[in-house]
Amino acid sequence: MIVTVNNDSDVRGVRDGLVRLGLWVERFDGSAGTQFVVGPHSAAVDPDDIRAIAGVSAVATKKSPHPKLDAMPRTVQAGGVRIGADAAPVVMAGPCSVESEDHVRRLAEGLAARGVRFLRGGAYKPRTSPYSFQGHGETALRWLRKAADEHGMGLITECMGEEERDLVAAHADLIQIGSRNMHNYSLLKSVASTGRPVFLKRGLAATLQEWLLAAEYCLAHGSPAVVLCERGVRSFDTSTRFLLDLAAVAQLSHVHRLPVVVDPSHATGRRDLVIPLCRAALAAGAHGVMVETHADPAAALSDGPQAVRPEVLFGLLEEMGLPGPHQRRSAS
Amino acid sequence: MIVTVNNDSDVRGVRDGLVRLGLWVERFDGSAGTQFVVGPHSAAVDPDDIRAIAGVSAVATKKSPHPKLDAMPRTVQAGGVRIGADAAPVVMAGPCSVESEDHVRRLAEGLAARGVRFLRGGAYKPRTSPYSFQGHGETALRWLRKAADEHGMGLITECMGEEERDLVAAHADLIQIGSRNMHNYSLLKSVASTGRPVFLKRGLAATLQEWLLAAEYCLAHGSPAVVLCERGVRSFDTSTRFLLDLAAVAQLSHVHRLPVVVDPSHATGRRDLVIPLCRAALAAGAHGVMVETHADPAAALSDGPQAVRPEVLFGLLEEMGLPGPHQRRSAS
Amino acid sequence: MIVTVNNDSDVRGVRDGLVRLGLWVERFDGSAGTQFVVGPHSAAVDPDDIRAIAGVSAVATKKSPHPKLDAMPRTVQAGGVRIGADAAPVVMAGPCSVESEDHVRRLAEGLAARGVRFLRGGAYKPRTSPYSFQGHGETALRWLRKAADEHGMGLITECMGEEERDLVAAHADLIQIGSRNMHNYSLLKSVASTGRPVFLKRGLAATLQEWLLAAEYCLAHGSPAVVLCERGVRSFDTSTRFLLDLAAVAQLSHVHRLPVVVDPSHATGRRDLVIPLCRAALAAGAHGVMVETHADPAAALSDGPQAVRPEVLFGLLEEMGLPGPHQRRSAS
Amino acid sequence: MIVTVNNDSDVRGVRDGLVRLGLWVERFDGSAGTQFVVGPHSAAVDPDDIRAIAGVSAVATKKSPHPKLDAMPRTVQAGGVRIGADAAPVVMAGPCSVESEDHVRRLAEGLAARGVRFLRGGAYKPRTSPYSFQGHGETALRWLRKAADEHGMGLITECMGEEERDLVAAHADLIQIGSRNMHNYSLLKSVASTGRPVFLKRGLAATLQEWLLAAEYCLAHGSPAVVLCERGVRSFDTSTRFLLDLAAVAQLSHVHRLPVVVDPSHATGRRDLVIPLCRAALAAGAHGVMVETHADPAAALSDGPQAVRPEVLFGLLEEMGLPGPHQRRSAS
Repeated sequence: MIVTVNNDSDVRGVRDGLVRLGLWVERFDGSAGTQFVVGPHSAAVDPDDIRAIAGVSAVATKKSPHPKLDAMPRTVQAGGVRIGADAAPVVMAGPCSVESEDHVRRLAEGLAARGVRFLRGGAYKPRTSPYSFQGHGETALRWLRKAADEHGMGLITECMGEEERDLVAAHADLIQIGSRNMHNYSLLKSVASTGRPVFLKRGLAATLQEWLLAAEYCLAHGSPAVVLCERGVRSFDTSTRFLLDLAAVAQLSHVHRLPVVVDPSHATGRRDLVIPLCRAALAAGAHGVMVETHADPAAALSDGPQAVRPEVLFGLLEEMGLPGPHQRRSAS
Repeated sequence: MIVTVNNDSDVRGVRDGLVRLGLWVERFDGSAGTQFVVGPHSAAVDPDDIRAIAGVSAVATKKSPHPKLDAMPRTVQAGGVRIGADAAPVVMAGPCSVESEDHVRRLAEGLAARGVRFLRGGAYKPRTSPYSFQGHGETALRWLRKAADEHGMGLITECMGEEERDLVAAHADLIQIGSRNMHNYSLLKSVASTGRPVFLKRGLAATLQEWLLAAEYCLAHGSPAVVLCERGVRSFDTSTRFLLDLAAVAQLSHVHRLPVVVDPSHATGRRDLVIPLCRAALAAGAHGVMVETHADPAAALSDGPQAVRPEVLFGLLEEMGLPGPHQRRSAS
Repeated sequence: MIVTVNNDSDVRGVRDGLVRLGLWVERFDGSAGTQFVVGPHSAAVDPDDIRAIAGVSAVATKKSPHPKLDAMPRTVQAGGVRIGADAAPVVMAGPCSVESEDHVRRLAEGLAARGVRFLRGGAYKPRTSPYSFQGHGETALRWLRKAADEHGMGLITECMGEEERDLVAAHADLIQIGSRNMHNYSLLKSVASTGRPVFLKRGLAATLQEWLLAAEYCLAHGSPAVVLCERGVRSFDTSTRFLLDLAAVAQLSHVHRLPVVVDPSHATGRRDLVIPLCRAALAAGAHGVMVETHADPAAALSDGPQAVRPEVLFGLLEEMGLPGPHQRRSAS
Repeated sequence: MIVTVNNDSDVRGVRDGLVRLGLWVERFDGSAGTQFVVGPHSAAVDPDDIRAIAGVSAVATKKSPHPKLDAMPRTVQAGGVRIGADAAPVVMAGPCSVESEDHVRRLAEGLAARGVRFLRGGAYKPRTSPYSFQGHGETALRWLRKAADEHGMGLITECMGEEERDLVAAHADLIQIGSRNMHNYSLLKSVASTGRPVFLKRGLAATLQEWLLAAEYCLAHGSPAVVLCERGVRSFDTSTRFLLDLAAVAQLSHVHRLPVVVDPSHATGRRDLVIPLCRAALAAGAHGVMVETHADPAAALSDGPQAVRPEVLFGLLEEMGLPGPHQRRSAS
């Protein structure tokens, strides 16, 4: 925002009023008098509260670049589960890659019995090396859907490319766009055009603004709703895999009032930090957590070191007050 | 760590065993067979658990570069208050810069009455511009000490240079080393030599390892104890002032088992995120929070936009189960 | 690499020998004696030079994760132009988005006359906002090809999605993968399968290793050659749009010996820094520069502020010793 | 800058005019009409060129926060050597830490004979670990001064703390403030008060603006001149020690017109990249380079892996057109 001051005698008063509202300001002077530009890490404030400061002659604002996102309901429904401000926190759990029908089935059974409402699992995997395991594809999708259905769970899985889009859309309740594809605008449009809700992971160096604009792409191209997922950003410290940005989560939840979920498994890569950071995420305002879970992490075909055994989640689920086994989800 | 494998037939089994423990590994081969190097964002593991894996012939480890820190008690005492794993979470509150005796006195009174055990306030201020207000110095130190004493609070304040060191040590219970001085080894040594416990803020681009080594400097040069304070690191997103790293806090608390406090005010610069991030910090394992508090943020001589009014803290204090007014601290 | 030391008496000598070669090392000790792990920012060294150090009993190395890239010729041919260690530096110039046939034609004429061998221009544009201009698509491709052909230039343009892949491959000599798609493995595979050489921009937070692996994807899936393009990475300083990493360029050119081009226009966003940074790029070892050029930057449909007028390039072209007008390229 | 537009019909024309000047702008609207805020990574532009755009009614500017730096001469003199826009590029070379009188003497002799005008060397060393070698202190200062004097060289060495300030000022021609102390305002003031010119290394996560303000501290507190030294900033890629920011160098040299030197040794940590990056630095506009040089890097007491042997510099010195042996510097 740009705040224009009536005249010289008001400059100090206006500055004080802006600070009192929690705004960082830079002062500019010219032939038209003094103006303040509100800086980027200011508290969110209603422009009318600024106009009410004595000595302010005009406030100029920027048009929101994401009008559809601003108008989206605060709580999203997918796979029979509600995610957002008006719903209880959700847990999404399952393996990084799906390895066998049997494994995913038993895992789903155990998780559902403890209140996990969303099954996650990778059928198509984005791998840094072309020589790494790339996922079981369509077969894995069927295993996942079946396991989710048997236990009344919603299903979330990633779509990496346009060629698998229709298959993923036919099986998943929430289609995940992975971190490495957040800026892949062709994919955003393509996935959105299926009319499914999107689970949009933050790009590994995306600003909050870029992330919101990627969500706007989804809404502008046919998706009814977006759930945002914070999974850590690139940083210089190597003791965690990425740097989990819970202040972004607090902003999304408390300022933008959008549904947001946190994935501490990918953020840290460290099994020993997953549970405390799930707690921290929920305390910061997250509406859910996504946790990489595997019955035997050593057998995982990808990212085994960061997966936890299902039992490790149980304490957290109890703290969250999640009930026991759920009914099958109603037909969507 | 370096893990050496007995022979070719064991390679897969050893890899699986390492993954099962939560370790990311890189494989190296040579005339002496296969070796794995454990990567930086692995879970913390006891080397003996690695030695127990079938097929492991040797495990080589690195000597800890911070032996004194490793041996430091998990709970630190300062100003009559205990901070750490075996103590209740503490709240440190007060203004960025101290402006008047009256202001700090009334603030201390209000905060102490609600269970805040530590008064914080700046007498000497590190300012990016040489033309900004640099603090009231010695006078402010006396105001702070008096206000703390009147209400049985501990006092924490920053020492920026060797010339004010003795004055700060004479007044403060915990001497703060600010973020911009974490790598200032001359100051670390100088402050440590006073024999006071140190409150060590993380440098704005310090790795966890560098931060721990800065703490080791303090212990190696005479300080009895260090409390670490996470206050955000540099990043590319401008919607918060810095990027608060709560995974580092979880590591310090749960893996290193060191006393750690979080300052969400400086981390975000945003008053509207302070309370949710205090909650998140405590959930991640922090042993306390430090919050910039001011009766009238507009009158603050520095960082007003990020300060909250004392009342804003009260809800948080209640959630934390903090009792009412405290006794005067016993003579130290 | 892991270097194993014969016995205790050799430890210091081996360490000295490793440092003498330019290696940063970490020491590990165990039942099998002392071992050194060579750190990441060490000079590139032949393992045999390490084996030759007195006191070294074994050196274990990691298999290269990008064997095809290692085997790729150091100089790549595309559009009749050679790019790499054994060729003269090339200049790639043209507008961010192509706006009209007339504009691109006149631009190509002027550039070709001064020795610019490659025309660049956007037909499909990755835009942060769904409401920004997204490119003239197929029509623009035809304009570009025609303009390039008329002046014997090679053509480079970006492919953003699988749906336009065949069209782009039919028109371009070098297919650009943009920064936002470097981690888009589906697109890498899809574009590579056309058999065209790929111009691979670095992801905005990609490590050198991830970038090389993305290039390996292209080679593993059918592309005959890859040219790498450094265009700046995310950072905290806002005075340039991204942070241009010329040390990565020096590594690619002098250590990995791969063809590398630098785009200072996108890296900095600043027209006033483009020419000095072109010079710096070539001095660091780049085999070419890509410069956003527009006859009237104010009329540019995207990124106008960073475009330079063609005349601005002429001084640089003369310094580079580029000759005048070229012949039409031979049929490919 | 804030640019106010006359009326609605001018908005497009003003935007075009701003883009034509190389400015990135954000549009704001309010009761007082349309205003544009010029974004951070815009080209440097004279406000009068903006006022000249048809349709602009007012331009508001910010007061420079570093007036003394703006007024500083573009070329600085220290130790009989001129550094800056109006002088030939200088080379500063010598060991990270000074180890013996003999070593530094022979090194100075060899370097001076080839045109190196500035001897650098560490007497006091900032070390991440309290247990690492911390420098030979005063003795080393005397060795350095003697070696510099014998060969007519200027001397640059680091001051880490107020206690050694007078000794360093008595021996050095240029006092270095290291990267880890750039934000140490107490030290900046203390060193500046000696009246010596300061060699100010960029903080490892300092924005350009913060760096310029640190220079302003020096000038505001008694230093006659500052030379800025880029030495790499923190980043996520581990293949170099830090990320060398040559766009910042181009800005300082071509936009701010301040004396700037580049240290590729510390920036990369890699001996094999030092020479190409010296060339790149000079091409970007640097007025000098600082290179860590050691007769036997294995014997270096710190940072050996990044040091080059003096002979490695000779080719670069010839390219730079540096002449042979120099006369002793005139008494200062």
